[in-house]
Amino acid sequence: MSDQRVPHMSAEEFRRAGHALVDWLADYQARVAELPVKPRVAPGDIRAQLPPAAPAQGESFDLILADLERIVLPGLMHWQSPNFFGYFPANASPPAILGELVSAGLGQQGMLWLTSPACTELESHVLDWLVDLLALPQRFKSGGPGGGVIQDTASSATLCALLAARERASAYTAREQGTPSTLVAYCSQETHSSMDKAASIAGLGRARLRKIGTDARLAMDAAALAAAIADDRAAGLTPFFVCASVGTTSSLAVDPLPAIADLCQREGLWLHVDGAMAGSAALCPEYRYLHAGLEGADSYCFNPHKWLLTNFDCDCFFVADREPLIRALTVLPEYLRNEASASGAIIDYRDWQIPLGRRFRALKLWFVLRSYGVEGLQAFIRRHVALAAEFEQWVKDDATFELVVPRSLNLVCFRKRGTNADNEALLKRLNDSGRVFLSHTVIRGQYTLRFCVGQTYTERAHVEAAWALIRSL
Amino acid sequence: MSDQRVPHMSAEEFRRAGHALVDWLADYQARVAELPVKPRVAPGDIRAQLPPAAPAQGESFDLILADLERIVLPGLMHWQSPNFFGYFPANASPPAILGELVSAGLGQQGMLWLTSPACTELESHVLDWLVDLLALPQRFKSGGPGGGVIQDTASSATLCALLAARERASAYTAREQGTPSTLVAYCSQETHSSMDKAASIAGLGRARLRKIGTDARLAMDAAALAAAIADDRAAGLTPFFVCASVGTTSSLAVDPLPAIADLCQREGLWLHVDGAMAGSAALCPEYRYLHAGLEGADSYCFNPHKWLLTNFDCDCFFVADREPLIRALTVLPEYLRNEASASGAIIDYRDWQIPLGRRFRALKLWFVLRSYGVEGLQAFIRRHVALAAEFEQWVKDDATFELVVPRSLNLVCFRKRGTNADNEALLKRLNDSGRVFLSHTVIRGQYTLRFCVGQTYTERAHVEAAWALIRSL
Repeated sequence: MSDQRVPHMSAEEFRRAGHALVDWLADYQARVAELPVKPRVAPGDIRAQLPPAAPAQGESFDLILADLERIVLPGLMHWQSPNFFGYFPANASPPAILGELVSAGLGQQGMLWLTSPACTELESHVLDWLVDLLALPQRFKSGGPGGGVIQDTASSATLCALLAARERASAYTAREQGTPSTLVAYCSQETHSSMDKAASIAGLGRARLRKIGTDARLAMDAAALAAAIADDRAAGLTPFFVCASVGTTSSLAVDPLPAIADLCQREGLWLHVDGAMAGSAALCPEYRYLHAGLEGADSYCFNPHKWLLTNFDCDCFFVADREPLIRALTVLPEYLRNEASASGAIIDYRDWQIPLGRRFRALKLWFVLRSYGVEGLQAFIRRHVALAAEFEQWVKDDATFELVVPRSLNLVCFRKRGTNADNEALLKRLNDSGRVFLSHTVIRGQYTLRFCVGQTYTERAHVEAAWALIRSL
Repeated sequence: MSDQRVPHMSAEEFRRAGHALVDWLADYQARVAELPVKPRVAPGDIRAQLPPAAPAQGESFDLILADLERIVLPGLMHWQSPNFFGYFPANASPPAILGELVSAGLGQQGMLWLTSPACTELESHVLDWLVDLLALPQRFKSGGPGGGVIQDTASSATLCALLAARERASAYTAREQGTPSTLVAYCSQETHSSMDKAASIAGLGRARLRKIGTDARLAMDAAALAAAIADDRAAGLTPFFVCASVGTTSSLAVDPLPAIADLCQREGLWLHVDGAMAGSAALCPEYRYLHAGLEGADSYCFNPHKWLLTNFDCDCFFVADREPLIRALTVLPEYLRNEASASGAIIDYRDWQIPLGRRFRALKLWFVLRSYGVEGLQAFIRRHVALAAEFEQWVKDDATFELVVPRSLNLVCFRKRGTNADNEALLKRLNDSGRVFLSHTVIRGQYTLRFCVGQTYTERAHVEAAWALIRSL
């Protein structure tokens, strides 16, 4: 028997290092607004500071913490800076960080109800809460044939929706016999790239994903969708799936769900709705119009890890009927058989997702919902939308700039009047300044700056400073 | 503009709650050996204690922590108990828990190099370290055409390998045109169920996944594999992918990699090797024989989150050539375009995985490798193998019990001499006692108990107590 000591950190060392890291993170959040949002590093700069091999003997935590500060910190894009206005936000928050800490410390593996009943039940429960909080269709609750599950990302949720739809459309044979070569799926030209990825992964191929045109506001043209479906049927193909967006990534356009849902129900197509960022706004009654028509959808997802203060990864995915999803993904090797699963009285989330194993992600969501309360979360959403509305007004009032499309919730798409090259140069100067980070898109050929107000601690002063900087450059 | 306050926890509240939770987790680890490993709850017990709706106003962290103790804790399977011998372990450790904490606090989103250079480069670097530490083929390093990436699970890694292989085998058209209906993949009857799931997801269908028979030790029969490939070619099909296991889930059998790799190279098939748990043993030179033949593999994965002290999720996935993987999964919408990506000088990990977004998971791995050092990790592995060897000897020396197959590393598959029902009843009594948790499998029709020594803090006393309990029941 090997007698060499395993150098576990002692409980005391863990406490000391843990307290130090909690303090370091509190300090990080206090100083992050002063750090350059976009790091000033070139490819390879971080690796060049790391030794070529792992150490033979263990090192002290002080040394590791020092390297965290010296090597890692300067190589970060500061998503948690209140001056971060790029892409969509990736909210972290104190209760969510603490939820991740507890999840890590408990080290649960929630693949089956049996392997962590609390992980499974808290997840179902909190997702049921969210159905009510966002006024989603009641059939997404777990008490009936539907239910919710936490996925890592909307990409995975969309893939799972596609797989469930494929199973339903192929009389449940796709799982065994392969993707039928006649199936056709639909999204818009503005739908998130994860739809292309999902079509490839699922063996459909991107060629059998139709990109429907959009209207002036970049929302899917429902009439064009109907025509495409009819064309495909006439060609002997089998339309089976539509992905609609509540808030596209480029410009936060909202597809016309009522018309699309009607069409899907008439034609027997699975409707998946992706509300990745914008969905969170439905916490506020005044934004629930976004989800009008959702009662006709087969599945829906939104990401509390974007704009609801819950650390990545946390995508909430709901299905109206879990049977085709489970049928598409179920596996039951002998070593996972158990009484609880056989009883049918419980949920085994391994059958609701691509991976087998899973972390206890419901904890952070539970912490966030309880720590902020519904009214606190509503205030959070409203604050950001109000700030974006102010920013929009400033753009309108300044003849140097123009809106490219009307503001949608917390996203303003704007540009300097001038060439695309002017705008590209402006964005580069802004981001190279380190004082803000914005990202871009191209709308109808126009290079467009995206200004998304959504970071946990962004307040009026940050938005004002950003606007002053934009005008000055 | 909305003036309602957003009730963020203050920095001081975060510090206080964070310190309290670190202490709670340290205490948890100190008392977990005394808790029933398998929770004494029935389906619905946890949900019954949760209120039907989220609170309108925020609650204090003390209240949340109290409910964590009162509601969640009794509903956990204690994977972190030293008396947990079920399935494969899901190691947590102090440095990994702290790594998760830092990752949560920094709130990075590493989809692109640009969106977090440190997240990307630390990941490539630490995975290169592991190539050397496990003496994996050098072509898995990121300096050449290959490289490593962290996936959530081996299930996802296997799916990615299958997609890359599909792309390579279909002259890169699968992504666009769908999975060709002639492709055939191979694994053994003992391969992990994720291979079935991957074949379904990728549109191949389980019917085009051939389950090759196994030898006396439950390892894949390479001659039978060669025959199946020949048969499929004769039938006009296109063999393209083999998944081999270094340590099957049921009995930790090791497939004959040298023969399989030769065959795959001769036939032009992609060879993926799944070393999910057993792979970590290669840290010790005396166990590197497990990977003999791996130099002929196209991809490989193992899970530090199983038996290398790194919290779930952390699967390390390596490819010898990243081009087909990226080709299979790449997407490039306008809003993700950037100079760094266009330069080709960097890695954008979004193209190496199913989801788009990704957490900073390399931190915990870096913390673990540095905190334990290579020698510390070797001691950890050796201790468990030695304990399993002792347990095996006890089984051999007791006429009431028998080994079902010879021990493999840290897994002992054994049974009481008697009927399957006797053994099923024994397992139930053991697990219902709360003093240990074991899981089972069926080997050649025999209900078999699996005793896997791999939990972070399992020591000789725990294994002795488990054996005493097993004999007494």
